[in-house]
Amino acid sequence: MECGLSPIVGFRFSLYPMADDFVSVIKGALEQTDTSNVWMHTDDVSTVIRGKQVHVFNVAKAIALHAANTGKHIALSGTFSAGCPGDSAGDAYLEKSEKIANTDDTKHYVSSQFALYPLNNPSYMDIIYREVDRAKEQGVFNESMHYASGIHGDIHDVFAFYEEAFSNARSEEHKHLVMTVSMSINSPSHGGL
Amino acid sequence: MECGLSPIVGFRFSLYPMADDFVSVIKGALEQTDTSNVWMHTDDVSTVIRGKQVHVFNVAKAIALHAANTGKHIALSGTFSAGCPGDSAGDAYLEKSEKIANTDDTKHYVSSQFALYPLNNPSYMDIIYREVDRAKEQGVFNESMHYASGIHGDIHDVFAFYEEAFSNARSEEHKHLVMTVSMSINSPSHGGL
Repeated sequence: MECGLSPIVGFRFSLYPMADDFVSVIKGALEQTDTSNVWMHTDDVSTVIRGKQVHVFNVAKAIALHAANTGKHIALSGTFSAGCPGDSAGDAYLEKSEKIANTDDTKHYVSSQFALYPLNNPSYMDIIYREVDRAKEQGVFNESMHYASGIHGDIHDVFAFYEEAFSNARSEEHKHLVMTVSMSINSPSHGGL
Repeated sequence: MECGLSPIVGFRFSLYPMADDFVSVIKGALEQTDTSNVWMHTDDVSTVIRGKQVHVFNVAKAIALHAANTGKHIALSGTFSAGCPGDSAGDAYLEKSEKIANTDDTKHYVSSQFALYPLNNPSYMDIIYREVDRAKEQGVFNESMHYASGIHGDIHDVFAFYEEAFSNARSEEHKHLVMTVSMSINSPSHGGL
C-alpha cells in the first residue's frame, strides 16, 4: 500500500457493465473520456486515476456517463483518497490548469451509497454526520442504512455532492481522507426519485 | 449512517455479473447460499449481511462461489465493518453457534484488492503494513499499488487471509474497523498465478 503527503487526489474504481459485451462498454467509456488531466493506470481488477481533485471527479463522472449512455445497466464502485502518507507518482499532474476536459451534460438517474472515513481523526463521526445532513439539505439524500448513506438524483447533482463532501471532510490537521462510493445506473431495481 | 458498539460484523457488498442475465446470476447465488446465520437486507444498490464474523465471511464467500460457478465473469465489491458507533439491529444473530452453514470447496482463481481503515487509531499505518507483510508470508500477495494492495490465489485462501486480517486489525482500544475488498473471478484480464 503506497501512500504520501502530496495534495494529490486519487480514485481507484471499477466499472461494471452488467452485459455480455462488458469489454467493449468499458473500453468505449475509457476511450470517449479525455483523461489527459490525470495520471491513469489499469490492472486486472481496477483503474486508478490521480491528479487535481477537480479533474479526478470530472474524469470519474465522464467515464460513468459514457458507460451509462450505452443504456446498459452499469455500476461504478471505488474509493477516493487523499493525504495517504507516501504518495508521490503523478505529482506532475498537479501542474494542470483547473479547466475541466469533459463536459457531457447528459442526465442519468443514479442511485448510490457512500461512506466517509477521515483517518486518525477523533471527531470523524461529526464530519460524517455533517455531510449526511448536507445531503438532506441538497435534496440528494435517499435513505439511512448500515455502514453507508444512500445518495440519489441526477448524475451531475450526485457527483457535485460527492466532490463537495470530499472537500469538506479534509482538513489541514487531518489530511488523510477516504471516501467509498458505489453507484448504479440503468438498473431494473431502481425505484427512481 | 447508522453505527454502534456491538461486536457484530457487517459486510455491505454488491455482486456484479458481467452478463446480460445478471439478474438470474445474482438471484441464483443468493438462493443457493444458506444465509440463516446472518441478518440480510438488499436494496437497489447493495446487500448487507450482519452477524458473527465467521458467518459473515462464510456467507460472503459462498455467494461469490455460487456466482463464480456459473463460469461468468463476476466481481464482488464491498466493505466489511465492525465497531461502528450505534450498531444494534441484528444483535440476535450473535447468539448463533460457530458452525458454518456453507461448505462448497470448489476452487476458483481470484484476483482482488483490499484496503484496511482502522478508524481513530494513530498507529493505523503500522496495522496496514503488518497485514500486507502477512499476505506476503502467506503467498497471497500479488502487487503493491496506490490506495490498496493486490491479493490473489484460490478463493478459499483469499477469504481466509481477509478474515484473519480483519481479526488482526481490530483491537479493544480501537474497535471501529473498515476493510474494503474488491474481487474479480473468471475475468479475461487475469494473468493467473
